[in-house]
Amino acid sequence: MAAFHTSVTIRFEDADPAGIVFYPRVIALAHGVVEDLIRQTELGWHGWFDHHGLAAPVRHAEADFLAPMRAGEALEARAWAEKFGETSGTFVVEFAGKDGTVRARVRTVHVLVDRATGQPVPLTSEIREALAPFSA
Amino acid sequence: MAAFHTSVTIRFEDADPAGIVFYPRVIALAHGVVEDLIRQTELGWHGWFDHHGLAAPVRHAEADFLAPMRAGEALEARAWAEKFGETSGTFVVEFAGKDGTVRARVRTVHVLVDRATGQPVPLTSEIREALAPFSA
Amino acid sequence: MAAFHTSVTIRFEDADPAGIVFYPRVIALAHGVVEDLIRQTELGWHGWFDHHGLAAPVRHAEADFLAPMRAGEALEARAWAEKFGETSGTFVVEFAGKDGTVRARVRTVHVLVDRATGQPVPLTSEIREALAPFSA
Amino acid sequence: MAAFHTSVTIRFEDADPAGIVFYPRVIALAHGVVEDLIRQTELGWHGWFDHHGLAAPVRHAEADFLAPMRAGEALEARAWAEKFGETSGTFVVEFAGKDGTVRARVRTVHVLVDRATGQPVPLTSEIREALAPFSA
Repeated sequence: MAAFHTSVTIRFEDADPAGIVFYPRVIALAHGVVEDLIRQTELGWHGWFDHHGLAAPVRHAEADFLAPMRAGEALEARAWAEKFGETSGTFVVEFAGKDGTVRARVRTVHVLVDRATGQPVPLTSEIREALAPFSA
Repeated sequence: MAAFHTSVTIRFEDADPAGIVFYPRVIALAHGVVEDLIRQTELGWHGWFDHHGLAAPVRHAEADFLAPMRAGEALEARAWAEKFGETSGTFVVEFAGKDGTVRARVRTVHVLVDRATGQPVPLTSEIREALAPFSA
Repeated sequence: MAAFHTSVTIRFEDADPAGIVFYPRVIALAHGVVEDLIRQTELGWHGWFDHHGLAAPVRHAEADFLAPMRAGEALEARAWAEKFGETSGTFVVEFAGKDGTVRARVRTVHVLVDRATGQPVPLTSEIREALAPFSA
Repeated sequence: MAAFHTSVTIRFEDADPAGIVFYPRVIALAHGVVEDLIRQTELGWHGWFDHHGLAAPVRHAEADFLAPMRAGEALEARAWAEKFGETSGTFVVEFAGKDGTVRARVRTVHVLVDRATGQPVPLTSEIREALAPFSA
């Protein structure tokens, strides 16, 4: 597998009064990691977000929160694509501490749709090729 | 089943450049609905968030996004508790349009832990009784 | 003066590890109050946000944070429009506790621009008339 | 002047349906830059956020939004401290595009208070010394 690696710093605003990261923020931060992965592909940001009138909304998301994250921490993040279907694909993002322990794992299933109709369309070859280097 | 019902207005900030709600925001809005449910229980906000030195962090979350939500929409939300385990419980939140169609469903599994040690502890009878009126 | 009045509940996510509301969230919540005000005008949400190809971005914002707000609190909010210029207008939003004490005051200066060119355009008569009932 | 310099990438979630950054997010991103500045000082994150039972809440904030920021852009950020009073200090954060044009400027006035009483206290010498290298 060839995961995309980056570092994510937990912001003061990401943490709640209990002092740990508010869990929907982990899912938002995971989206940021996928954005960084996409920027590294041949498609790039604009090739992805303005892709032939298509969009890739999330239809399903799930996350496991294995250990707390705190404001001010710098975590290692890794992300990859998996399980390509006819019209859908899945991204996985993991956040780990300096010691390698996974703190959270987020999985999002995206469906490629036509912006005009909202109907699913087959993954384009450009998308499959762009994500191949970051696929499990 | 006796669900808790409320209304949730989608804010301009909840929507992304594609014009639909950024999906982690749906999960955050679902937490807000659970907060409102909790306020209606006998425990109330402080009884829940300052509960004998305990906390109820989310260990697992999953969500299905069935149809888009747009900024400015007022959605019907309903929430209930289900699947109480020894040390855990699950909240379900659904958002529906005026026509009753469910747009999104969010499920969060909380584990009751001792704040000092982080270790799971059995659900207290106060929590079980407080949530009983809103349980599936 | 005829201010718009509503209630705003501080969410768990709005508060930071210090237990009080993260101040940029107060400014975001103020925008939500202005959204509610706009919904009450003759223009309505769509008349405002899809207004003849125009947009009203914020050019200047300032806020005073006079006393802390905490997660779980329900605050009284009031909002009004003031200082209409040729191409700009100002909204003021105040948040107060049950005892009437103002906790925060947010002031935002919007400039009406043509979406296509980004250039300022004179306030339309529809906007002036829509905001008149909520003007200082 | 010795400003702190860093880079800030605008996230998909930071932009609104108009395609530009929702302005309260600029203020939140500015706080993130100040967090990074603080991490570079002798005090560090914990020395600042757990400082002798003191806290430095924001009493006033103001921002000018000079040109739009869009999702996916990487901006240059610079931050510095200015105008130290007896019990207060001000941070300024500017965001600029690759061509050096300033897109937004955020100014926040913090007052040092005793967490227990909420009363202002004189800036400590540790804070003055820590911020000196990043002061205008």
